Amino acid sequence: MQKLNVAILGATGAVGQRFIQLLEDHPWFQVAEVIGSSRSAGRRYGDAAHWVLDDNPPAQITDMVVGALDDEIESPLVFSALPKEAARLRELELAADGHVVCTNASANRMLDDVPLLLPEVNAEHVDLIALQRARRGWSSGALVANSNCTVMPVVMSLKPLLKYGISRLHLVSEQAVSGAGYPGVSSMDMIDNIIPYVPGDEDKMESESRKMLGSFDGDGIIRWASTVSATCTRVPVLDGHLVNVSLELAARPSLSEIIEDWETYQAAAPVPELPSAPDYPLQYLQQIDRPQPRRDRQAGAGMMTSIGRLRECPVLGYKFAALSHNTVRGAAGCSILNAELMAVKGYIDDFAVREAAAIAQ
Amino acid sequence: MQKLNVAILGATGAVGQRFIQLLEDHPWFQVAEVIGSSRSAGRRYGDAAHWVLDDNPPAQITDMVVGALDDEIESPLVFSALPKEAARLRELELAADGHVVCTNASANRMLDDVPLLLPEVNAEHVDLIALQRARRGWSSGALVANSNCTVMPVVMSLKPLLKYGISRLHLVSEQAVSGAGYPGVSSMDMIDNIIPYVPGDEDKMESESRKMLGSFDGDGIIRWASTVSATCTRVPVLDGHLVNVSLELAARPSLSEIIEDWETYQAAAPVPELPSAPDYPLQYLQQIDRPQPRRDRQAGAGMMTSIGRLRECPVLGYKFAALSHNTVRGAAGCSILNAELMAVKGYIDDFAVREAAAIAQ
Amino acid sequence: MQKLNVAILGATGAVGQRFIQLLEDHPWFQVAEVIGSSRSAGRRYGDAAHWVLDDNPPAQITDMVVGALDDEIESPLVFSALPKEAARLRELELAADGHVVCTNASANRMLDDVPLLLPEVNAEHVDLIALQRARRGWSSGALVANSNCTVMPVVMSLKPLLKYGISRLHLVSEQAVSGAGYPGVSSMDMIDNIIPYVPGDEDKMESESRKMLGSFDGDGIIRWASTVSATCTRVPVLDGHLVNVSLELAARPSLSEIIEDWETYQAAAPVPELPSAPDYPLQYLQQIDRPQPRRDRQAGAGMMTSIGRLRECPVLGYKFAALSHNTVRGAAGCSILNAELMAVKGYIDDFAVREAAAIAQ
Amino acid sequence: MQKLNVAILGATGAVGQRFIQLLEDHPWFQVAEVIGSSRSAGRRYGDAAHWVLDDNPPAQITDMVVGALDDEIESPLVFSALPKEAARLRELELAADGHVVCTNASANRMLDDVPLLLPEVNAEHVDLIALQRARRGWSSGALVANSNCTVMPVVMSLKPLLKYGISRLHLVSEQAVSGAGYPGVSSMDMIDNIIPYVPGDEDKMESESRKMLGSFDGDGIIRWASTVSATCTRVPVLDGHLVNVSLELAARPSLSEIIEDWETYQAAAPVPELPSAPDYPLQYLQQIDRPQPRRDRQAGAGMMTSIGRLRECPVLGYKFAALSHNTVRGAAGCSILNAELMAVKGYIDDFAVREAAAIAQ
Repeated sequence: MQKLNVAILGATGAVGQRFIQLLEDHPWFQVAEVIGSSRSAGRRYGDAAHWVLDDNPPAQITDMVVGALDDEIESPLVFSALPKEAARLRELELAADGHVVCTNASANRMLDDVPLLLPEVNAEHVDLIALQRARRGWSSGALVANSNCTVMPVVMSLKPLLKYGISRLHLVSEQAVSGAGYPGVSSMDMIDNIIPYVPGDEDKMESESRKMLGSFDGDGIIRWASTVSATCTRVPVLDGHLVNVSLELAARPSLSEIIEDWETYQAAAPVPELPSAPDYPLQYLQQIDRPQPRRDRQAGAGMMTSIGRLRECPVLGYKFAALSHNTVRGAAGCSILNAELMAVKGYIDDFAVREAAAIAQ
Repeated sequence: MQKLNVAILGATGAVGQRFIQLLEDHPWFQVAEVIGSSRSAGRRYGDAAHWVLDDNPPAQITDMVVGALDDEIESPLVFSALPKEAARLRELELAADGHVVCTNASANRMLDDVPLLLPEVNAEHVDLIALQRARRGWSSGALVANSNCTVMPVVMSLKPLLKYGISRLHLVSEQAVSGAGYPGVSSMDMIDNIIPYVPGDEDKMESESRKMLGSFDGDGIIRWASTVSATCTRVPVLDGHLVNVSLELAARPSLSEIIEDWETYQAAAPVPELPSAPDYPLQYLQQIDRPQPRRDRQAGAGMMTSIGRLRECPVLGYKFAALSHNTVRGAAGCSILNAELMAVKGYIDDFAVREAAAIAQ
Repeated sequence: MQKLNVAILGATGAVGQRFIQLLEDHPWFQVAEVIGSSRSAGRRYGDAAHWVLDDNPPAQITDMVVGALDDEIESPLVFSALPKEAARLRELELAADGHVVCTNASANRMLDDVPLLLPEVNAEHVDLIALQRARRGWSSGALVANSNCTVMPVVMSLKPLLKYGISRLHLVSEQAVSGAGYPGVSSMDMIDNIIPYVPGDEDKMESESRKMLGSFDGDGIIRWASTVSATCTRVPVLDGHLVNVSLELAARPSLSEIIEDWETYQAAAPVPELPSAPDYPLQYLQQIDRPQPRRDRQAGAGMMTSIGRLRECPVLGYKFAALSHNTVRGAAGCSILNAELMAVKGYIDDFAVREAAAIAQ
Repeated sequence: MQKLNVAILGATGAVGQRFIQLLEDHPWFQVAEVIGSSRSAGRRYGDAAHWVLDDNPPAQITDMVVGALDDEIESPLVFSALPKEAARLRELELAADGHVVCTNASANRMLDDVPLLLPEVNAEHVDLIALQRARRGWSSGALVANSNCTVMPVVMSLKPLLKYGISRLHLVSEQAVSGAGYPGVSSMDMIDNIIPYVPGDEDKMESESRKMLGSFDGDGIIRWASTVSATCTRVPVLDGHLVNVSLELAARPSLSEIIEDWETYQAAAPVPELPSAPDYPLQYLQQIDRPQPRRDRQAGAGMMTSIGRLRECPVLGYKFAALSHNTVRGAAGCSILNAELMAVKGYIDDFAVREAAAIAQ
């Protein structure tokens, strides 16, 4: 099977590096183009990128020449790790130009015709692409987004509980520094300290959760109607966002029913068969002091959400803690899973033509 | 003015050390006895104590010989930093024996006739001492406690808002490691990590807040009736507990009214004149990213509570962040302030006899 | 191929856990017995052990019952992660009783007839076992040790340079907290701090390096004669010891010759073929700010030593930085590699009988 | 006594903030002008500066308007916390224009006629100002520099040992992040990590120590002739640089002689009487695990150097650890002490005229 070429926009940044790392041995996709800022364009990737992840960049990427943002892109599939302002127009241009763009940037997330996709939660939203193409006159191009990295573990852990009717939701996050990119948060702010504010994230948690948990009725996404309150704080942790969730349910399931809901939850086919999908997207940890960022962020190669401490909340009824790896499942890993879903759903032309039979097995 | 001799129980531990540090230049009290575990008893303090605070222990303490827990105590005033089980009976024995005992231990906090004292919040609870003495047949002895270090900034920041009617209260803490004592939390648990659980603290926040904010009707404390939900987490910070507070008020004050309530709040005389009391117990920080543990824990020499980020909460109405220094205001500093209040209220015999005139000025 | 049963002594501690983790999928060995302290004995491993590594213990280990230290051991191969005093006699008893014991404890390391083995450096020391058995009257039993975790990257990086004549060696370490075990170093000592002293390690670096780099002449180890000065400090890092090495060489190789020595270094057969051996034990990093503990400790699955910053030292001639994972290569991983070497060398009876043919391939 | 007006260049940066903090209650000097970058100029200091120290900026500074770097300066005394390139010409212009400039920038430190002043070490270097003025045709202006923050504790601790003849010096530092300014080192580089390289500092330690410990012969500084090797590393500590020092002495003093040299060392008058000078610039700590950055950096209000662990070094003869607060004694505090020395030596015109009598007492 010949792999599909992909381009990474914002390839030298922290999320761009995570895309490269996660795609190193991907069975379907291979990195063919790395695109950076004007400061990086024209240089060897190994020289232009200050690699902030562990080890070193994969050897085959190190010698690639970084392209400029306005260069023509050849790869049919594009992953965007661009800064917000750089992303806004360029992602739409590339989609108009026939590329399937899977973006981690926030710029276009809340557009009405852009799916905010988390395959285990709302795979059916991918069909918003038909509307997107029709409305915008695009043929082969498309734009799908993944969510903010902090809302992700919340939405994932709420999905199996929607049946109980979630009326009110209260969230307090403790977020890792990698969520702010590199260099991001100064070490002078993080040693022996926490910061009780993360710019922009409280609004995103409230708005993006409503879009992601909304239903697709053929014409668009009908927003989820729960009342959401989010507080976002920054803690001296490298990777892994933990969210303290309290919620009110219309029904009154027992704690063990909820735990069973989580432990048995799986998305409908084909999601569990996608290469980057964990067998089960959720795990419930019995230990009273878990999940912990350092110990649980790698669960399912960074693609699972770990939940713990489910108990009664005197104010809202139920509370628990949920944790995900913010730059894997909460960013690059989710974009890649979204692209895999797009591929098997037939939204990537080249891929569909060449590989449909293989995937269908 | 001759200073009153005090004894420190549990003097070699982390909170015991904080007592010694804070009493170094105290205008009324002087450390005359340091009491430790059987392992420390009989040794020089400088040898027995592994000093964990900054610098070194005060020179005059270093050469004191550590006494054993069952030694007879001579000092009329006793500060207890004992572990819970060691505290339970010994504190009552010492009070029965005529000592005024101000304890930071949790063992006897919730006894009906023991005031859980935070002078700016409930100074009138000190009069529970009369009942305590009558019921137990004590003459000069007494036992007063200060609260858990995490509930402290909550209770302090709620006090000026009681007039609005607090019906529901939702708390998520991010607590410093010094709250667990020394050696306490292993560095292997705290590097690049948080722990979403602090043994015992969630219960204490719920129960102690109800006692502290209760009213004294002459016969006892009538518990405050609000519904409280607490989640306690541990973060890699040395000192300073931050609590994310959401609350529901019966009245609907504006945000600026609440800020003014905080900024102008003072306890009634004589509390603001006590040596360890800050001029104002609360400060509101306008910066959107404050309070922060490292930058704000020393406000008012560690005795003020810093508040920030007051804003609307879609779920409960209001939310904000509150921070106090957990081993100063939340532990040793509060015990000392409690003792100062006991002194001026005439509950410490020796002190009252010798110094009443001076204090009354 | 049927795997060889092994027992882990001190199985619930931090290094014991690392043994379990590294042996999870080992091709030759399988954990059959887990031995703990009297407090753990008789309990399920999953209940007795507070797992401090990432994720959770392997499922097949979780349900094992922890044995007591004086229980009879059935497994022919024993890995010891015992505390020093517990190790001293018990390891010798087990060897006398016919077991091959590979220990990470320091108690018996410096005994004249115990090899202090680092296979890429001194595989020939394994033949000291013949003397050991003869002197002690052991038949199938043996005791081999691995070194202190801090001296390990030093000895490994010096091995290819021995040919130049190392006359003087000056070492300053920056060591991770996991080197002290769990709970080990208090978080109150490590937040915003370093400790310029690690009990015992300076002596070990000086004495163990002389034994490890010594030559085996058939009668025993002739100590390496270099002058060694070691300073050991503790830094707030989870895993990975970095050592700043300065050294004087009799010959005057160029910097590039030394780098080539490192990059091409391999031990003689069969060491590179052992299952836990990396292809090359050393890597030289060209970036001026490497090696770094968090980014480089996992090189070669934690079994490689990373070197960087080779440059001239005005005082001693040459200086560089070397880094290894202290609980993988510097502890459990090295013990396992030592056992693999023992196995292929025929020192483990059961293994030799059953599997010699397979290994010889 | 009317205080002398001073201007702070680079007032909004981390070292600029430290100048402001340390001058808040200075007995001789008062901040009259705060100068910042073009981005800050014209704004309120409280708005322009992201305050990174504890608490908040002093109230009287908060409302000052930040001046631009090319604005005319009125204050006779100027403290410079400028970045290197900005400092180079501007500091010389201001001195030419009649200002006494005390700089923390490195740009002009190594100029032959600029004293690199550490008053307890080389107060006599201040007389290089006469040459400076003569050569450059300056009347009332002058430029004095303080050293790099890492070399400072080394030079201070070596001063009392110069009499023994220091032939070789080997240094390995463990430096705090505040040495890199704000935002400086990314938290993504410092969590669970150290960086074995600090750009520029190794060269500075070697060259600046030779100038500072050199002798002034009336015509210039004769460089100290010792051989110096420096390795500089960055650790996750907020403030306080620790240096592991090994050295060779021509004489062979006992360890206790050296400790007595340190404990009794004082500079000649008038240095110990300067307002910012500690009574003794050095303290020797007997505990085997000290000095530690967090516990010892505040010794002498951040102006003392703490030494510990003196012992024999098998390679060079002696070794010890030395620690100073890098942004107090190693930066702003040293500049202020330098200015105090300039003042009492009569090099600041306005100050000399008005206050000479008072100081002479």
